[in-house]
Amino acid sequence: MASVTFKGVFPILVTPFDDHGNLDLESFDRMVRFMADIGVNGVTIIGVLGESNRMLDAEREQLIKTAVDAADGRIPVIAGTSYSGTRATLELSRMAESLGAAGVMVTPSRESVPNEDRIFEFFQQVAEGISIPIVVQDHPASTQVHMSVSLILRLVREIPLVACIKEEAVPTPPRITALLNGIGDRAVTILTGLGALYGAFDLARGAHGFMTGFAFPEVLLALVRSAKNKDFDAVHDIYHRYLPLIVYEQQPGVALRKEIFRLRGLIASSYVRHPGANIDPTTADHLKSLLHKMLPGMDITRPIEV
Amino acid sequence: MASVTFKGVFPILVTPFDDHGNLDLESFDRMVRFMADIGVNGVTIIGVLGESNRMLDAEREQLIKTAVDAADGRIPVIAGTSYSGTRATLELSRMAESLGAAGVMVTPSRESVPNEDRIFEFFQQVAEGISIPIVVQDHPASTQVHMSVSLILRLVREIPLVACIKEEAVPTPPRITALLNGIGDRAVTILTGLGALYGAFDLARGAHGFMTGFAFPEVLLALVRSAKNKDFDAVHDIYHRYLPLIVYEQQPGVALRKEIFRLRGLIASSYVRHPGANIDPTTADHLKSLLHKMLPGMDITRPIEV
Amino acid sequence: MASVTFKGVFPILVTPFDDHGNLDLESFDRMVRFMADIGVNGVTIIGVLGESNRMLDAEREQLIKTAVDAADGRIPVIAGTSYSGTRATLELSRMAESLGAAGVMVTPSRESVPNEDRIFEFFQQVAEGISIPIVVQDHPASTQVHMSVSLILRLVREIPLVACIKEEAVPTPPRITALLNGIGDRAVTILTGLGALYGAFDLARGAHGFMTGFAFPEVLLALVRSAKNKDFDAVHDIYHRYLPLIVYEQQPGVALRKEIFRLRGLIASSYVRHPGANIDPTTADHLKSLLHKMLPGMDITRPIEV
Amino acid sequence: MASVTFKGVFPILVTPFDDHGNLDLESFDRMVRFMADIGVNGVTIIGVLGESNRMLDAEREQLIKTAVDAADGRIPVIAGTSYSGTRATLELSRMAESLGAAGVMVTPSRESVPNEDRIFEFFQQVAEGISIPIVVQDHPASTQVHMSVSLILRLVREIPLVACIKEEAVPTPPRITALLNGIGDRAVTILTGLGALYGAFDLARGAHGFMTGFAFPEVLLALVRSAKNKDFDAVHDIYHRYLPLIVYEQQPGVALRKEIFRLRGLIASSYVRHPGANIDPTTADHLKSLLHKMLPGMDITRPIEV
Repeated sequence: MASVTFKGVFPILVTPFDDHGNLDLESFDRMVRFMADIGVNGVTIIGVLGESNRMLDAEREQLIKTAVDAADGRIPVIAGTSYSGTRATLELSRMAESLGAAGVMVTPSRESVPNEDRIFEFFQQVAEGISIPIVVQDHPASTQVHMSVSLILRLVREIPLVACIKEEAVPTPPRITALLNGIGDRAVTILTGLGALYGAFDLARGAHGFMTGFAFPEVLLALVRSAKNKDFDAVHDIYHRYLPLIVYEQQPGVALRKEIFRLRGLIASSYVRHPGANIDPTTADHLKSLLHKMLPGMDITRPIEV
Repeated sequence: MASVTFKGVFPILVTPFDDHGNLDLESFDRMVRFMADIGVNGVTIIGVLGESNRMLDAEREQLIKTAVDAADGRIPVIAGTSYSGTRATLELSRMAESLGAAGVMVTPSRESVPNEDRIFEFFQQVAEGISIPIVVQDHPASTQVHMSVSLILRLVREIPLVACIKEEAVPTPPRITALLNGIGDRAVTILTGLGALYGAFDLARGAHGFMTGFAFPEVLLALVRSAKNKDFDAVHDIYHRYLPLIVYEQQPGVALRKEIFRLRGLIASSYVRHPGANIDPTTADHLKSLLHKMLPGMDITRPIEV
Repeated sequence: MASVTFKGVFPILVTPFDDHGNLDLESFDRMVRFMADIGVNGVTIIGVLGESNRMLDAEREQLIKTAVDAADGRIPVIAGTSYSGTRATLELSRMAESLGAAGVMVTPSRESVPNEDRIFEFFQQVAEGISIPIVVQDHPASTQVHMSVSLILRLVREIPLVACIKEEAVPTPPRITALLNGIGDRAVTILTGLGALYGAFDLARGAHGFMTGFAFPEVLLALVRSAKNKDFDAVHDIYHRYLPLIVYEQQPGVALRKEIFRLRGLIASSYVRHPGANIDPTTADHLKSLLHKMLPGMDITRPIEV
Repeated sequence: MASVTFKGVFPILVTPFDDHGNLDLESFDRMVRFMADIGVNGVTIIGVLGESNRMLDAEREQLIKTAVDAADGRIPVIAGTSYSGTRATLELSRMAESLGAAGVMVTPSRESVPNEDRIFEFFQQVAEGISIPIVVQDHPASTQVHMSVSLILRLVREIPLVACIKEEAVPTPPRITALLNGIGDRAVTILTGLGALYGAFDLARGAHGFMTGFAFPEVLLALVRSAKNKDFDAVHDIYHRYLPLIVYEQQPGVALRKEIFRLRGLIASSYVRHPGANIDPTTADHLKSLLHKMLPGMDITRPIEV
């Protein structure tokens, strides 16, 4: 298993299907290899973008295996293992560990009566059953769970396996400041998500990189390089240059992003599992025009230069 | 597989665990046999009460197998197979069918943008992959999905496998009237749930019985017998007699009901999986007092006389 | 202004309209006088049941004036003054105080990001602007706001005007125990609501009475008398006797309760303001039958004997 | 009253308060005059951004009067009049009309059981009581109400006063296409909102302009001019140029936008009413840096050149 420090760029991968909705592991393998080739710091699979909530356990197993094999020790694989029950989350996390995942990404589930103590216990119990690090995903837009800053800091303080916060509760910039102030010396990092929508602003606040599904991780790598050099003018410029694409791509719905991955030659079909919506022809056209405008003359099936 | 007509009493079973949260299949077997012995018309497993949202796929498989074996053809077993993705729901339903379930109970999942056409397609696609009847569960309190009467009637009209509506959207009585008026000649039944809270009122509106977890299904059987004879005074009297227990037991949380099953000798532990709450000692005491008051001198480990 | 101790029975009044939706202050006056005549400990107006969220400020003013005049110092009037902004809640509370209300009932509003500190400040700022006691309503079913027990106890400890908790977060019994344990010596009472659905159980836990809209407060008065005498067998018996009516009436929708008030001769019309639903003829018929069965031979336009 | 065609740019105005939360009508007057000076097509007041849900009725009245006076017939004033009850919405709309508003902006309220027929009736009943046009605001993020395209088209078809759709249900571009296809010959326009986040994309789909709170409406005017000339390359370029600012400003929370209005010299204080959050110093600093970077050397207290 590749060891992992949660700094840099961790693309969240889509889950490719064929046009009948069957797993397309060949595309999945290709996507993972591509990511390793362009130098990302790891990949995250079976997240919201990966349509995790439409997947059987056996399919999760296949995906983890495939990704770990494809990564081949070159990059760590983080597996999303969130489930509505604590024990099931723990079992899925154990499976991920046993299959070679370098970490798990976990988000709490909505309960009819929200209760932060229960959320703490949830992470605690999961941590007790595994030995790989945990990424706490804070994404109320998909979970309907609002974690307070003090809850997250309690997770950081009391659960040693918590190694990273994927921060996606808007507005993210002040939240990142509050978390960094609270984390202190603990070696826990903060990655921003949300398709990089607030990327430059979150890096300026001290975020350590990206864990998100933007389909041109080359751009994110350039952003992180400049941020590492404290060159925030360059960060701003790169962010500004690609921002229309970032904004367009982060619209709700997995289909848009899958279509870009398809256009990049990474997956064979942009099929989304029901009840998710597939891309409509007009939107596909507009997307193509936008790509032409933003990346003129580029062959996007190859790594792009930023 | 036992064939099934969705009339009468279909207890929803809890999923028994040991005190460490492992499946207790022995208790599960005992509970199913007990239900067959007292003459229910079927049992429903892996519903909300069965903590379905905290269960791995492999556990679902074990539960279905165990229930079908225990039922031994004496009563049909209905398996809850709801999942947030259509295909996963279909696959779980296929598994249930292949293991001998007589029907599946399915509820739509909350999507971030509600869309009744998608819900229709969801049921349609599930129906296309199986050949056993479908119970449509309409329980917005747990699903956050509000199906309109016209959507449910469309399901009834256009999907032949839809055989039963488990109606739990409050207020249920006018909804049952609206559904019955709309169903017409289609041989689709309506069962009431919600722990029988509105049992007498829903039977008076024409509901065909119960699919719910009230821990004394003997009472529900008596209610249905009287309703069948159109003796609604008797229905009212029986309902009235047990109503404090019905009200108490239907409070949110699975623990109360599991504790009664435990006191009835049907399951070994009332353990609830995290993040569900276990019963606290004061509540357990109050429950015992209430049982004594409502069922004076009765041995509740045996079928009770109503 | 009548002084107030929040023990006993505080009916929540509906807001009567004519058949065009105009305020019917004559009926409102009659209802308040009726309540004073039967000996309740106060009335609460402009709550959820009072369709507060469909009322202009000027109408609230008229309702408070009318109720205070009708009460004529015989019973205190509590006015619901919840609003989505803190300052507006404060201003409405001030208006209520200046018009002679003996207390205000306040519930926090849903914010897109829940935050208990903000809820605390909300109550604190309202308290700073008035000098009459505050009833904290805890009713997540209507507010979508889940207050933790520790937040409520903080309100009790730190805001002297907080005098009463109207507890309606299910399951209420263990919550009442937790609150009573935490309140200690502070003279803060707990009243149960929810149409008295859990009345006997909540009184057994130590609740000090009812603040709810059950249309036969005579029953609630009898329950409180027996509870005061520690005669919980009598509490159980009375509760049991009327329970079908309690269950039926507490179904969602204001219309049912308004119809009973109309049948009792207290209001002229059961009209509910849009988008609320009016009662349908079948339900009205069923309600009448139920009233006949539960209160045989009684003239419900007069105070009933319990 | 100024007549109104809902094309072009309609800034949504914040509601200015002094540092104690009192209405600051002088600032409000100044802001309206500024908007008229730079040539917008109208202003919209008392929307979500205007903290409408924290305002007493008497304050709404003052705001409408002030805006209509300040507009002085040069530009139409649209007043937000949404309320959780139909009749109250109608009465507020009547008040707006009588005070000289040229139109009302109305959004449906969340009901515990969503029902599109009720939403239709809601708009129908409001329309029956007024004679000025209605803007239907479709913004599920703040309302929790999801209107289907077919409901909106029914509103357009059957309610002649419906003159404009403020479309803010993401993803907006395909929704705008669907609406335009359905509207046909009816002279109903679509304006985009959401702080102009998807401005270029929505204009490319055929949106007729903006009704949103972006604090530099000069930019929106330039976008609309180019779109009118079918020069979508220019639209893209202008949008791209200001996009970091657009993204930053549209983050949740009114405070950011109020702070820009303050920096522009239009309002005296950026105070937000509780429980809304005021801007923190770090965010205020970051905002200033961003403004410097995006608008180098510009005096933003004057209309900016785009």
